Amino acid sequence: MVTTELRRDPVTGRWVVIEMAPVKSRREFEPTPQAPKPPSPQASKDHPCAFCEGQEAAAGRELLAWREGTPADGPGWSVRVVPNRRPVLGIAGTAERRVDGLFESRDGLGAHEVVIESPTHDETLAAMPVERLWRVLWAWRTRLQDLKRDTRFVAAVVFKNHGRAAGALMDHSHSQIVAYPVIPSALDDELRGCTAHHAQTGHCLSCDILQQEIRARVRVVLELPDVVAVVPYASRTPFEVWLSPRAHAARFEEASDATLAALAGALRAVLAGVDWALERPAYNLVLRTAPFDGRADDAFHWHLEVVPRVTRIGGLEWGSGIARNPVSPEEAASALRVQLAV
Amino acid sequence: MVTTELRRDPVTGRWVVIEMAPVKSRREFEPTPQAPKPPSPQASKDHPCAFCEGQEAAAGRELLAWREGTPADGPGWSVRVVPNRRPVLGIAGTAERRVDGLFESRDGLGAHEVVIESPTHDETLAAMPVERLWRVLWAWRTRLQDLKRDTRFVAAVVFKNHGRAAGALMDHSHSQIVAYPVIPSALDDELRGCTAHHAQTGHCLSCDILQQEIRARVRVVLELPDVVAVVPYASRTPFEVWLSPRAHAARFEEASDATLAALAGALRAVLAGVDWALERPAYNLVLRTAPFDGRADDAFHWHLEVVPRVTRIGGLEWGSGIARNPVSPEEAASALRVQLAV
Repeated sequence: MVTTELRRDPVTGRWVVIEMAPVKSRREFEPTPQAPKPPSPQASKDHPCAFCEGQEAAAGRELLAWREGTPADGPGWSVRVVPNRRPVLGIAGTAERRVDGLFESRDGLGAHEVVIESPTHDETLAAMPVERLWRVLWAWRTRLQDLKRDTRFVAAVVFKNHGRAAGALMDHSHSQIVAYPVIPSALDDELRGCTAHHAQTGHCLSCDILQQEIRARVRVVLELPDVVAVVPYASRTPFEVWLSPRAHAARFEEASDATLAALAGALRAVLAGVDWALERPAYNLVLRTAPFDGRADDAFHWHLEVVPRVTRIGGLEWGSGIARNPVSPEEAASALRVQLAV
Repeated sequence: MVTTELRRDPVTGRWVVIEMAPVKSRREFEPTPQAPKPPSPQASKDHPCAFCEGQEAAAGRELLAWREGTPADGPGWSVRVVPNRRPVLGIAGTAERRVDGLFESRDGLGAHEVVIESPTHDETLAAMPVERLWRVLWAWRTRLQDLKRDTRFVAAVVFKNHGRAAGALMDHSHSQIVAYPVIPSALDDELRGCTAHHAQTGHCLSCDILQQEIRARVRVVLELPDVVAVVPYASRTPFEVWLSPRAHAARFEEASDATLAALAGALRAVLAGVDWALERPAYNLVLRTAPFDGRADDAFHWHLEVVPRVTRIGGLEWGSGIARNPVSPEEAASALRVQLAV
């Protein structure tokens, strides 16, 4: 296994995962996004996909599965969670902080799990019955509840890569959960704004934004009793959509079955709308939930971000940190509303 | 021209450029990074490259050029700066702040210029004589000095996309300058850390980091009297290198001719080393210089970032904000030192 280290950038405060293994040859570096990957062997007869039903041994021992009476690690499941075979962070190590002058690091400690969302090779989230999509969200919730018990971890991120342009290396539909011993930098960016607003007003920032959006009705895509879907005011990509519980709630892992059902229905509708608008784009899902220790429970509001990956990140975006979005959020919301009403 | 708007994300504080033109068809969205671009017409006989010598009218009226006696807007130059024909932000408008409840926006105001780095179609920065590379840096400096006079702008970023994976759409070597009416979010991330450190210690953070790096000698690539090249402790990509003036200096646009000469020599050496290590990768250059109004002159230290673009940004990186770097900075620095000594 590759030894990794978490390092904190002393200027920006951002964390980076560094692989510490010596480089043996120049060929070991990852190919550029431009270089086409060889077709993954998963679909051929000689190399069946490790995530397909019947290949449970290849995917690994299950941490969780939705089964109705079938034994663990065999066929007969609809969602299955296994450890990632190539984890970005390893489960061994301590969360101890190491300091060397201005530099701070930790062991590359973390949990990295794969949620296999379907037993069938080519079934996508967008095409799944809502009841089955609910089971995926149930798996996220259940695993987060468990990971939270490991006191070395302070927060977790659930994400999904759909399509090569979004970073997916396997075609079989799956999401991933990573638990960290530090606050992930992107979550930290959101926490900073939320806690400042809460300190100033006593309100949750997302609750206030949702109220303003629901009043204005120009960027709201879908409004259910429990869940609201909004195209964010400063969307970074075309047709970005955030799904949030309407009432204040810091933690996804405490969401009720009913909220998950509303979220599953809304997510399916939004994915169908995005597929229509952008002709089945690559996309990422990112679930943001509050840090495990409760430090931000009053200020932070969990949400699921749907991020189509149809724009490129060149020097302009990298250098300025300012994304360029060719579709206005109002246009995107209006198009999605029309489509969802059909 | 497309109307754009700068919008501030109310949660993270990040700015986004939004194109406000109505979407006419779904086909108008940019293709995914996966979709190969048609070969650009610049190299064929029917469509000569607009950046080549002899095509000055196609590139636009020059804002600046290095010429030795030749008239403006004709052949006989070695570096030439023109307005970008498809600017990300427009030069018309005010820097006035608009507020709508929790949301803040501005006109999509800015300057966007192209620095054509060579009259020759296929000459790269890495292959250019140091004297000519110096003229590119001279053009950056001169244009920044001029843009700073427009009081609507508070900061500028200079960047370069080399290769498709870094966002380049034209093969002809060029860099770009964008001036903004707001602090670009990536600069803001660095300013936050630098000003906090300065408030706490009275020192420039980069000066302190450079001192520690020069003492440790494990991540330093090149040490000249005026300029130091270091692989950052928490590098986001393999073989990332930062070039900085050794003595404290907040603004690139005030750098002396001698400092630019040292930078040109160091940059050429570093690019050659990176080309060797990663087999001529796509890369971005980003020049970071302090805000125009001097607010951070004691705390901020200008630097030029060389960022090879050989890793992918999937949901893991997007969702966590934590980059994954498969090559340790110590390994990279050691490899570059060996190569540069040859």
